[in-house]
Formats: sequence, structure tokens, C-alpha cells
Amino acid sequence: MKKSLGIQTLAQPAPVWVVGSYDAQGKPNLATVAWGGICCSKPPCVTISLRPATYSHGNILARKAFTVNVASVTYARQADYCGIVSGRDVDKFAVLGLTAIKSGLVDAPYVDEFPLIVECRLQQTVEVGGHTQFIGEIVDVKADPAVLSDKGLPDIEKVRPMIFTPMTRTYHGVGEYLGQAFSIGKEIG
Amino acid sequence: MKKSLGIQTLAQPAPVWVVGSYDAQGKPNLATVAWGGICCSKPPCVTISLRPATYSHGNILARKAFTVNVASVTYARQADYCGIVSGRDVDKFAVLGLTAIKSGLVDAPYVDEFPLIVECRLQQTVEVGGHTQFIGEIVDVKADPAVLSDKGLPDIEKVRPMIFTPMTRTYHGVGEYLGQAFSIGKEIG
Repeated sequence: MKKSLGIQTLAQPAPVWVVGSYDAQGKPNLATVAWGGICCSKPPCVTISLRPATYSHGNILARKAFTVNVASVTYARQADYCGIVSGRDVDKFAVLGLTAIKSGLVDAPYVDEFPLIVECRLQQTVEVGGHTQFIGEIVDVKADPAVLSDKGLPDIEKVRPMIFTPMTRTYHGVGEYLGQAFSIGKEIG
Repeated sequence: MKKSLGIQTLAQPAPVWVVGSYDAQGKPNLATVAWGGICCSKPPCVTISLRPATYSHGNILARKAFTVNVASVTYARQADYCGIVSGRDVDKFAVLGLTAIKSGLVDAPYVDEFPLIVECRLQQTVEVGGHTQFIGEIVDVKADPAVLSDKGLPDIEKVRPMIFTPMTRTYHGVGEYLGQAFSIGKEIG
């Protein structure tokens, strides 16, 4: 018998993505989001949600671009910091000693130190409630060569992204390999 | 120096959510998705993306409801199966020996054996490209009492959800605890 927990944002797992954008003065900013995910294969798109009160919300609307920077677990503290303070008040790149690289493809910066970067052109926005969903078309993915598999794809065990759990507000790393998708279920039925 | 990998759906991590819906005859169906995420706090909403060709796409449009069933790693093979075959051809609940419970709140079934269930009323759909995004307002979360923390919230180390990695198409479990969100970054700056 299941226990009812009421109306809560309790889906698991959630990503930890550090979103890069430029403000009106060209200052690069970072905002950590857990409300997001891939939302389309053709064209490849990701979505992130931000409240209108956030600094990055206005940045992305104005520049029509953002980056998704996947922090490795070694940058857990820095990623958390980017979800606590506002870019209105501080220069997060400067405080954290991170390097902002201007994307050559979209009007947004990315974090040179992070292993996996997704550069996005804003496709559309969706008002859901208190959050605006920004749907970004992926125009390039950039990776640290050290995190690539022998097939040239980002290996999650080398990227070592973080996982966020809503409500309990915990961060975890990636655990044991369970198998190949579209494969381990084939023996059934 | 980052390596450019081109236009690919390479953001990490992605969830593994088994989506429950009813077809026109009232047969419960399951579809596994990795394109999804939480997209709003007020009201709490999740989004999942499906191609129009999928059986669940029509089900959800007609019934205006779906459930997100979080499989534990012990159900990895069953979750994978639900992403391989179509509900047009088979009764996945029957094949897998899973129990479909009719939600008392929305017109969709959930998986009794899975530890964490999110029941959703369809709020809106968004055409992104080849996928339709279904945005669902969460009307209740149900959990197996065994996965709750002493504060009554789902503990991710007890739920043991799966993680999907795009392109390499691997499943992983949840790894080591890294710290509390909105906390470990406070000591910076």
C-alpha cells in the first residue's frame, strides 16, 4: 500500500546543470538549475526552467542563448554556490576562479573547467506557472577529451555529473553500471 | 581545449521514467522515457516528451493524464522493456507481471511494484520538433513507505532510481552522497 505524500515536486532523479548567460553589460553569469531535461531528439533540444525573478531569466530572453555546463562532482561546492547567490550581486566566475569562454556559436559563455558543455540557441519559451521553461536547440556539444569513451562519446563515469534529489535537497554522484538501454529488456517477452 | 562533438543530445544525466496511461479501450500502457524533467515548482509540474508515433502519445492526449513511475534498479530490465516494445502490440503489464492500479485522482494507471509514483493531470502540450512535450501538473505523489526517510520524504538511496546516459545508451544507479544542496556552496565567497 502506497503512502500519499500530496502535491510535491518529488520526481527523481534531477540533473544539476549550471546555466551560462551574458547580461546586458556582457558580464557572464551562471545559474544552477535542477528543473530541466532533454526534450527532443530532432532537433536535439534541452529545456531548463527559471523563475522570472532570476538574473539569468532576463539574460536568456535578451540574448536568446544559453549554455548547459555539466559540473563534475569535484565542482559540487561551486555548482551549489551558483544556485545560492544572484548574478545581480556578484560576478560568479570571478568569485569561483572559473574561466568564461565565449561560445563561437551562440551569444553565451561556457565554463572552461567543466567537462561537458551544451551550447543552445533559444527556440521557444513556455510559461508553466511560477517558472518559465526555456527550450534550447543544441547547436554544439563540447567535451574535455579526457571524458570521452573510445567511441568518442562522453562517458558518464568520466564526466561524473551530479544528481539532485528534490525536497530532501541532496546531491549524489553516479553509481554502478546497470547495463545497456534498448538491450537488457530484450530477453523479456 | 574542448573537443567539439557537433549537434547531439548529450546532456547528462537523464532520468528513467516509466509513463503510465490508458488507451481507448481502457488497457493500461507503459512507456519508458528519458526525455523529461521537473519544469515548475508552483504548481509542481513535470514534463515528458514522446514522439507522435508512440501509443502513449495518443493515450495521454485523449485522457489528459499520465503517471510517472520511478523504477528501482531491481526493475531495470522491465523498465528497459517498456522502451523497446509498443503498447499497440502487447499488454506490457501482463507480460511483465506488474500490477496496474487505477489512480483515484487522474485517468491513468500506476505501477504498484515501483517505489515512487507521480500522478499528473495534463496542463499543456508543446511541439518542440519530432517530440511533443507533455507538461503535467502533479496532483499527488505516492511512495512505498519503505523508501521514506525519517522526515517522510523519498530517500533516493532507498528509491534507487536509474540514470540514463544519451548516445552511449547506458543505465547507472545512484552513487555516493555528496552533500546538501543550498548548503555546501555557502562557505564560498
